[in-house]
Amino acid sequence: MNRLKIILFAILTFSLQSLVAQESKVFDNLSMNSKILNMERKYAIYLPPGYESSERSYPVLYLLHGGGDDQTGWVQFGEVQHIADKAIKEGKATAMIIIMPDANTGRRGYFNDVNNEWRYEDFFFEELMPEVEKKYRIKSEKRYRAIAGLSMGGGGSFFYAMHRPDLFSSACPLSAAVRNNTFEEFKQGLENQKVTVKNPNTLTAYYDRHQALRQIELNDAEGMKSVKWYFDCGDDDFLYEGNSLIHIAMKKKEIPHEFRIRDGAHNWTYWRESLPEVLGFVSDTFHQK
Amino acid sequence: MNRLKIILFAILTFSLQSLVAQESKVFDNLSMNSKILNMERKYAIYLPPGYESSERSYPVLYLLHGGGDDQTGWVQFGEVQHIADKAIKEGKATAMIIIMPDANTGRRGYFNDVNNEWRYEDFFFEELMPEVEKKYRIKSEKRYRAIAGLSMGGGGSFFYAMHRPDLFSSACPLSAAVRNNTFEEFKQGLENQKVTVKNPNTLTAYYDRHQALRQIELNDAEGMKSVKWYFDCGDDDFLYEGNSLIHIAMKKKEIPHEFRIRDGAHNWTYWRESLPEVLGFVSDTFHQK
Amino acid sequence: MNRLKIILFAILTFSLQSLVAQESKVFDNLSMNSKILNMERKYAIYLPPGYESSERSYPVLYLLHGGGDDQTGWVQFGEVQHIADKAIKEGKATAMIIIMPDANTGRRGYFNDVNNEWRYEDFFFEELMPEVEKKYRIKSEKRYRAIAGLSMGGGGSFFYAMHRPDLFSSACPLSAAVRNNTFEEFKQGLENQKVTVKNPNTLTAYYDRHQALRQIELNDAEGMKSVKWYFDCGDDDFLYEGNSLIHIAMKKKEIPHEFRIRDGAHNWTYWRESLPEVLGFVSDTFHQK
Amino acid sequence: MNRLKIILFAILTFSLQSLVAQESKVFDNLSMNSKILNMERKYAIYLPPGYESSERSYPVLYLLHGGGDDQTGWVQFGEVQHIADKAIKEGKATAMIIIMPDANTGRRGYFNDVNNEWRYEDFFFEELMPEVEKKYRIKSEKRYRAIAGLSMGGGGSFFYAMHRPDLFSSACPLSAAVRNNTFEEFKQGLENQKVTVKNPNTLTAYYDRHQALRQIELNDAEGMKSVKWYFDCGDDDFLYEGNSLIHIAMKKKEIPHEFRIRDGAHNWTYWRESLPEVLGFVSDTFHQK
Repeated sequence: MNRLKIILFAILTFSLQSLVAQESKVFDNLSMNSKILNMERKYAIYLPPGYESSERSYPVLYLLHGGGDDQTGWVQFGEVQHIADKAIKEGKATAMIIIMPDANTGRRGYFNDVNNEWRYEDFFFEELMPEVEKKYRIKSEKRYRAIAGLSMGGGGSFFYAMHRPDLFSSACPLSAAVRNNTFEEFKQGLENQKVTVKNPNTLTAYYDRHQALRQIELNDAEGMKSVKWYFDCGDDDFLYEGNSLIHIAMKKKEIPHEFRIRDGAHNWTYWRESLPEVLGFVSDTFHQK
Repeated sequence: MNRLKIILFAILTFSLQSLVAQESKVFDNLSMNSKILNMERKYAIYLPPGYESSERSYPVLYLLHGGGDDQTGWVQFGEVQHIADKAIKEGKATAMIIIMPDANTGRRGYFNDVNNEWRYEDFFFEELMPEVEKKYRIKSEKRYRAIAGLSMGGGGSFFYAMHRPDLFSSACPLSAAVRNNTFEEFKQGLENQKVTVKNPNTLTAYYDRHQALRQIELNDAEGMKSVKWYFDCGDDDFLYEGNSLIHIAMKKKEIPHEFRIRDGAHNWTYWRESLPEVLGFVSDTFHQK
Repeated sequence: MNRLKIILFAILTFSLQSLVAQESKVFDNLSMNSKILNMERKYAIYLPPGYESSERSYPVLYLLHGGGDDQTGWVQFGEVQHIADKAIKEGKATAMIIIMPDANTGRRGYFNDVNNEWRYEDFFFEELMPEVEKKYRIKSEKRYRAIAGLSMGGGGSFFYAMHRPDLFSSACPLSAAVRNNTFEEFKQGLENQKVTVKNPNTLTAYYDRHQALRQIELNDAEGMKSVKWYFDCGDDDFLYEGNSLIHIAMKKKEIPHEFRIRDGAHNWTYWRESLPEVLGFVSDTFHQK
Repeated sequence: MNRLKIILFAILTFSLQSLVAQESKVFDNLSMNSKILNMERKYAIYLPPGYESSERSYPVLYLLHGGGDDQTGWVQFGEVQHIADKAIKEGKATAMIIIMPDANTGRRGYFNDVNNEWRYEDFFFEELMPEVEKKYRIKSEKRYRAIAGLSMGGGGSFFYAMHRPDLFSSACPLSAAVRNNTFEEFKQGLENQKVTVKNPNTLTAYYDRHQALRQIELNDAEGMKSVKWYFDCGDDDFLYEGNSLIHIAMKKKEIPHEFRIRDGAHNWTYWRESLPEVLGFVSDTFHQK
């Protein structure tokens, strides 16, 4: 085989690989070890078209599922691959990696518990994020990191961005599970769940950290303003009140935010319609418009 | 001009009139005499395509302008003719007559004043409605009558349908000027405007009748449910609070209603986008779905 | 004015009139005197585009409203003008005149009563049809006459075409009110309505004439085959049973017929979707395919 | 062939395999061993676009052929690959695996025979389903499993979902071979086929299990309601009666179901038009709307 042949083969092979790599890929059953949670944790990932053929790095969207679901929810019910492929192809969204962690195994939810024994939020920031941002070609600066989620994951995305505005350039809580409960109601809730609080002194701080209107009241406005916010909650969603009150509270605190109420309820039909808007919105922050 | 010429002119004129009549027509400077207000009152009208050539009767939409504007606002700024023609042609809306009264001459607003000296609401129900529904081929049953409006007219459409749910099958307050003021604030407001209240005993009733959340609280639920409601208010509208609180209050009272928050502020760009939806929504009630 | 001027004026006038005449017209409040019913009877009419400018004659569709409605139903709720204009413009339907009689005044329904005192069916065939077919440029042969209707009017169109297959080339009962009641149930129904039957000997004949499955069983197959049938009834319509049994009975008697079950219920959304199909179907018989 | 050539060929081959894997794949001549039927059994499979490059799991549709056909029917005549690819690309259907078993070899049909000697239904549930759901990345919960089929396979899909509502979230019998035969006719049928019934005591139970109206009558309503039903049968299909009676029987038992009668007969033209609707319908259950 002469040299020309070799060169032609190389070109052909390279071309074919490029061609192959144009498609996006989804894995919905990946896992990693968590020392914090002391178990294997699952996650799903969306790799955009071109990920494998190129060697560039990408921005990342953390996309959180709702209560009772797991890391496969956005893949199966949310049609994340079809919708992201379409949005990227049409130029509405930029190519990005999407990470969908499981928050349903062991205990449900995105937060540390009141006694700090189940530390999911710590797992997210200290283990999951570093792991995936190292394993995949993810840009690790704030400007390239977004978070979104629905229902319980809407609450998760809201509080994660409130707690760590230094990490996310945009946040999109959809039909967010955010409640307007008083401290007394919060305490009663713990009692109803038969939770024994080991350190009562930390209770107020815990409440303040996980109650939406308190967070808006207490948080540093500059931090909040450094995140681009996009809320969306159907007019027939049972979570209308908490979401409407967030709109009012953020207005009063003069935190710029997008807010949408469209026709619909707390279901996947609604969220599949939200997803293209979310992808476009976070792309605008990745793009800097 | 000889006789032949006269005849030919007559034929030509008649032909032209017929021709014109196939298109929709707008008159923005009509007027009628009001005994209640003791003056001539202006209004504008949209007559749908086919109104003059056919002999059928039509449903009616009362479309209210905002503060500082007059009966020409929806015609000039709102593009009512272009938008209604398009919606009807595309089958999104049914052919209807649209009445746009002036609420800016003499005094501003759609309500009787606190001393019952300026009785605009009485004029609307006792003089304007009967006059136009007799003068034009308007169906006069509740099922064929709708009301909508923006800002001050959003408030007008809200309260008119709250006060007279027996008259309207649908109501569409856009960016409605509805405030969440307390009775004390209301009284202070009168003082600030140097209004002398002649009969203080009626003050509470007056407040209750013109405060949105009080109306929702006090009104008969069955009456409210007999109206189809469509609210729309941009996420950057300064009237966000009153509108969001109406959404919450109507939800809590279990009054079915459509509610939208789209991207935008308190301006005609927003309302021109609302108008086709409004025309479609009121058509659904005229159509019986 | 010289001769040339006159000619030019005449041409101009004629041109303008032609232009005018291109639009369809609807009248929804026409009436005629009925000796049989001893009262004025209302009807609505649709005249197709071109009716007034041309002098040709047209085929006719009798389009019957449902119970509780009147001659304006197909105009207001059914959007007959918009839908017929569109179907004709797109070439899906041929230009035709549509007659919509009122069957709700005095007594409800399209039939003679059991004592032959209220003779609506006789009025239809002996007075209404001759009157409108003479007054408007309607072709009066069977091949150019169709009948359709919804619910009570679906029953009306079914039985009119069963009783007089010599008069209609096509019939389209939509969501037809056809019941599978026994003779005993029929008699009980009369008792429940406190109807005194004056001539019990005619009761069986009356039952046979107004019970759908009996009509299919007893009627001459050749007559039935001389009508093109198109049935349509939503899968969520409460009248599913009578319509499904008609399908089975006509199959067993080998009467060719189109039968549709689409997604939907007993409402105008369904019938507005049926109407273009009906107009296309009756046009095929007017066209002879 | 020198070493370099081998390496280049290997790279090229790998690239081509990856490339191919982005597209959907159909295999129509796979087989597995059945102990129950004591033979090799064929089946065809559709793997959606992305199946081979991704590592996610998928919902599954079992798609049954009609009498006289085999596992290649839906591939060749039904255009399953073209139609499924298109529906998935347009977002009308979610990506799914489609399994098409052969029910024509040895004996025709989807059921155990009356003497339980030929146990096809047992094979389907005890061998085929477990085998393919293990071999391919198929989600194995009820919510992700659907069944559909035409004619004999329409009957198969109807009875499989009636017998095992715990296994299927949706069922779509097309032009289903469901007969309204009496027990006497059933026995006569066995005699005509010269079938010797070994255990006459089980005959009634067998009849009840395989007669559609009996199944609807006898089955637990809650189980039936846990399946989403979609029936479709052309107005010129010779199986009109059994299907129409199922519609009536399920209505009377208040089992929600979609039912369609479109224009057409018992042929592939009809079923190719049904297939996109079926894929969309089962996707709605996979999607949770």
